[in-house]
Amino acid sequence: MNEVSRPNNVAIIGGTGPQGKGLALRLAKAGVSVILGSRSAEKAQQCAESLMTQLQSEYGVKADIAGMTMVDATQAADDLVILSVPYSGHDETLSALAPQLVGKTLVDIVVPLTPGNPKSVTMPPEGSVTEAAQALLGDEIPVVGALHNVSAITLNDLGREINCDILVCGNDLTAKKRTMAMIEIMGTKAYNAGLADSARCIEAITPILIRLNISKDVPFSHAGIRICPPTGEH
Amino acid sequence: MNEVSRPNNVAIIGGTGPQGKGLALRLAKAGVSVILGSRSAEKAQQCAESLMTQLQSEYGVKADIAGMTMVDATQAADDLVILSVPYSGHDETLSALAPQLVGKTLVDIVVPLTPGNPKSVTMPPEGSVTEAAQALLGDEIPVVGALHNVSAITLNDLGREINCDILVCGNDLTAKKRTMAMIEIMGTKAYNAGLADSARCIEAITPILIRLNISKDVPFSHAGIRICPPTGEH
Repeated sequence: MNEVSRPNNVAIIGGTGPQGKGLALRLAKAGVSVILGSRSAEKAQQCAESLMTQLQSEYGVKADIAGMTMVDATQAADDLVILSVPYSGHDETLSALAPQLVGKTLVDIVVPLTPGNPKSVTMPPEGSVTEAAQALLGDEIPVVGALHNVSAITLNDLGREINCDILVCGNDLTAKKRTMAMIEIMGTKAYNAGLADSARCIEAITPILIRLNISKDVPFSHAGIRICPPTGEH
Repeated sequence: MNEVSRPNNVAIIGGTGPQGKGLALRLAKAGVSVILGSRSAEKAQQCAESLMTQLQSEYGVKADIAGMTMVDATQAADDLVILSVPYSGHDETLSALAPQLVGKTLVDIVVPLTPGNPKSVTMPPEGSVTEAAQALLGDEIPVVGALHNVSAITLNDLGREINCDILVCGNDLTAKKRTMAMIEIMGTKAYNAGLADSARCIEAITPILIRLNISKDVPFSHAGIRICPPTGEH
């Protein structure tokens, strides 16, 4: 276990998208206050209400989820701000939020899937989205890459465990540990996968999983990856 | 299962190294003829004798393992030639073997670990070793990237199952299927992970596993990765 305390709240930018909603449900169900940030504060508030109603009716959980603009949501976060927007809007969104991110940690979960071909990534010149985000924000704001490989369908299906270990990377160890503590609240394992340039690998696992999941060669979809220790002698 | 027939024989270039020996043991134990290729034919023959003795004494298996020069081993392969040399010797070895590889399939398992830092890779300008090999050999000789992430210690410990799924990539689907059939003979699962550029991801998984395996944060070493379908409702 991490020796880092759990966060009081987490902001999710792009929180009304499928990935954002799934993360919001899992974090809020575990007792973390969640702040959804969207272009429209009204849309974010409606989404927050809907998720709270779902958690109350299905699990009897009185969740704390708020909705506001992206800027206000970032401002309201104690520390962790998850960025979950389509790659096409990544840089613009991040530039707009940079002033509010000072003193906080950006958790970037964006995968640069190739437009029109989700079985492929097209990495930015910096090598990966995580590295591009760190370059854009500068060294004072730590960027952590995480949660790239877990299916949105799985996240939203609270009846299922998350069948995916989370590989976490970034250049700031403390920021990574805080992110890992947040991830483990959702009941799955997080591993420190190294510096930000490990994102060149981790982000690119997603299109490989997408390829498998839509293939007729395997009898499943929504697969994740897991780190597997050796099994016993046989 | 693959609808591709199992290979009669497989050549392993660099077959006297730890990865090569482990693959030779597992393939030969399953009844595949193995040809070890080394710079020294004598060293390759001695290694082959030693592995056959081990399989006979420990498992009562009469294995067929031969040892010869790299050129002769490549020449003797029906189809599959596994390249398992240190990255520093990769391009030179491949150039020397190119004439013998015509009409065959190169299975490249080399990971470009950064010299002095096995927790990192330094990719060649082509993007990955698999892509570099394909560029070096030209489009007529199919290159398949595979077996990058499985630990040599695990391969050599025949009492253990291979705790690692094998992600296979390359631009020639038939060559990938033949490689996958060969891998599954060793009792682990092989997945088609896409075109050769997927090797930018797959080769880079190895330093992430090495980082975890030498870390004090996890209670294991020699971890592999597995593709995990969703688990049941809980």
